[in-house]
Formats: sequence, C-alpha cells, structure tokens
Amino acid sequence: MKTPSSLDFLTEALRRLPGVGPKSAQRMAYHLMQHDREGAALIARAMSQAVERIHHCARCNTFTEHEVCETCLDDGREPSLLCVVETPGDQLMIEQTLTYKGLYFVLMGRLSPLDGIGPKDLHLEKLIARATDGIVTEVVLATNFTNEGEATAHYISETLKARGLKVSRLARGVPVGGELEYVDAGTIARAMLDRRTT
Amino acid sequence: MKTPSSLDFLTEALRRLPGVGPKSAQRMAYHLMQHDREGAALIARAMSQAVERIHHCARCNTFTEHEVCETCLDDGREPSLLCVVETPGDQLMIEQTLTYKGLYFVLMGRLSPLDGIGPKDLHLEKLIARATDGIVTEVVLATNFTNEGEATAHYISETLKARGLKVSRLARGVPVGGELEYVDAGTIARAMLDRRTT
Repeated sequence: MKTPSSLDFLTEALRRLPGVGPKSAQRMAYHLMQHDREGAALIARAMSQAVERIHHCARCNTFTEHEVCETCLDDGREPSLLCVVETPGDQLMIEQTLTYKGLYFVLMGRLSPLDGIGPKDLHLEKLIARATDGIVTEVVLATNFTNEGEATAHYISETLKARGLKVSRLARGVPVGGELEYVDAGTIARAMLDRRTT
Repeated sequence: MKTPSSLDFLTEALRRLPGVGPKSAQRMAYHLMQHDREGAALIARAMSQAVERIHHCARCNTFTEHEVCETCLDDGREPSLLCVVETPGDQLMIEQTLTYKGLYFVLMGRLSPLDGIGPKDLHLEKLIARATDGIVTEVVLATNFTNEGEATAHYISETLKARGLKVSRLARGVPVGGELEYVDAGTIARAMLDRRTT
C-alpha cells in the first residue's frame, strides 16, 4: 500500500504543530479526511488568513491586524504604566484580573540561552525605546516565575533601572515555578496589587 | 486586550483537530504565528490540497487520489484473498509484516452502536458487493481486537458466510483489547499466519 501523496503531505505538514508527533499527525489527517472535511477546509482558510493578516503591533509588539493594536490605542489607559509580559495569553490573564489599567509590552518569548534566545532575539531594544519614551514612569515586570522568566525580568530590570526608570515585579503570590497562563485570576490579582520595586 | 480576529478564527479552527482543546489550540496558533509562519502556510496548502484531491478508492474504499488505488491495481497480488481492516493505518501495519499478499477492503471505521455507527454508516453493502465478485474466495477479518472491532468482525463474518464465502480472522496472537496500530509487527505476523476459519 502507498499512502496518497496529498495525505503524506498533510501528515508531514501537521507535524509542524507544537506537540504533534508522527502518530498524532496521521490520526489528525485521517480524522479530517474521513469525518470532517469541512473542518479541514476551515483550518486551511484560517491558517492562510492568519499568515496574511497577523503581524506585530508597532508599539507593544503583540499580534495585531493593524499598525497599532487596540490596547495601545485605548486612551482610557494610564500611559505612564507599562507592563511587560511574555505572551499575549499572559496579557489576557492580567486583563482578566481587572487590577491593571496601564499599557503593555509583549516580549513574545523569554531569554533562554539554552535555546539560543538572547536579548537581540527578543528585540529588547524595542522595549527599551518604548519604555524610555518620556511618558512611561514605571515598568511592571510580569514575566513568568520560571527560571527563564526570572532571568528575563532581572535582565530587563537592570537595563531599565540604569536608564532611571522605576521597575517593579509582580509579587510572589504566584507560585514559584508556575506559569501565568495556568494560575487562577485571584492569585494574579494579589500579585499585581503586591508588586514590589526592584 | 482584544485578540485579532484572524487569530481567534485560527484558534477556533484548530479545535476541529481531534484531541485539541482550547488551550492547545491557542498554543498552536501562537506558536505558528510567532515561530513558524512557513509551517502555517504549509499546513494551509496541504489541507486545501488534501480536501481537494483525496477521495475513496472505488474498489477497497481507502483514501486515494485516483479512481482506484495503487494497491487494488497491483496485479502481483492474490485476487482471491480479501483482508478487511478498519483504517489505512491498520492496512499499513499488515503490509509491513510481509505475510499477506492479497487485496484489502478498508472499512474506514467500525460498528459502534453507541456512537450511532451501524452497518449502513460503514457502507458494508460496498464490502459485500466487493467480496461476492466471484473472484474472492477467502475474506480475512483484521478489524481491531476491541469490543467494537470484534462485533464488526462477527457481523461481517455472519453476513459473508451466509453468502458461501470462507471467512477467517487474525489469530488471537494480538493481545485482547489491543489496537493493531500499536502492536509490533512480529505479533501481527504470528496472528496473520495463525488466522482461523470462523
């Protein structure tokens, strides 16, 4: 038996999804072709559209379909406060606590020397330019409380304090080793209220 | 923060993949947009191409891009032997044992009354027509050794024996409750050699 090449191609392509190995990719491909062709067509369309339209906000670096994202354009926010998070998911978690009314900068990652991700790869110069615009007075570091997140916070803190900014960090109400995305909003709220100057 | 709608659309679409919930879908979408846009474009292309080109073989019901699949067209095979499997993956496992030289019929599922899958949904009339073409003399049932696979084998066996065909079943070298796809080739080879008339 030879698998049709379009099916091999699809199985190979699905392995580009994070956490999907050869067996899962094959199961997904078979499932879609057998039971959910509409779903397959939908995924194809959504994927093309996202690749075409999604890029990074010129101010906060998050995903957006516009030049500047809606959060950055929201003039009801306190422009002197800038919260640094690793991912858009982390930003969403902080928004849900309703304890923060400032703006954001989304790193889209963290420093990770073992994976070859240094300050340049994270485009930290973009963050420095953003934080030293003369309007921002306090930068709240809300990277994860993992080793890499802590190292990232430390690096940013040292860099920005050298430029005369007040830098604070979410309080350690967040369990050590935990990732923001999986912590309940109450804990994150506590940590936001207890943020401390570093 | 509002997620860009193309990203929401992609996250929603990815949930159509089997075994992917909201958190995984979001992680996949972020990963592709941040680290692997080429992968995203590839998946979109592979998905469209598969939806467009893949359909069922007119003879054995497996996935193919042609009217009749390559296996069915292979005239080096013994046309009097027909092996019934649940999925193309199961067929591939049997091919790898090199113990079988006949043709196949791929059910693309199994009887599963609890999920509302009866003989009609499996298109068993297609199998009956195929098995009673006058050339096939023995049908080897190689459905899984799960409850549903066994029930499917029993149903097909009764139906085909009533039409005067010899029907055999893979020997129980395969562990009871196991699924073919996850069994080693040696065990399947044993089971193929020991197949018994039912």
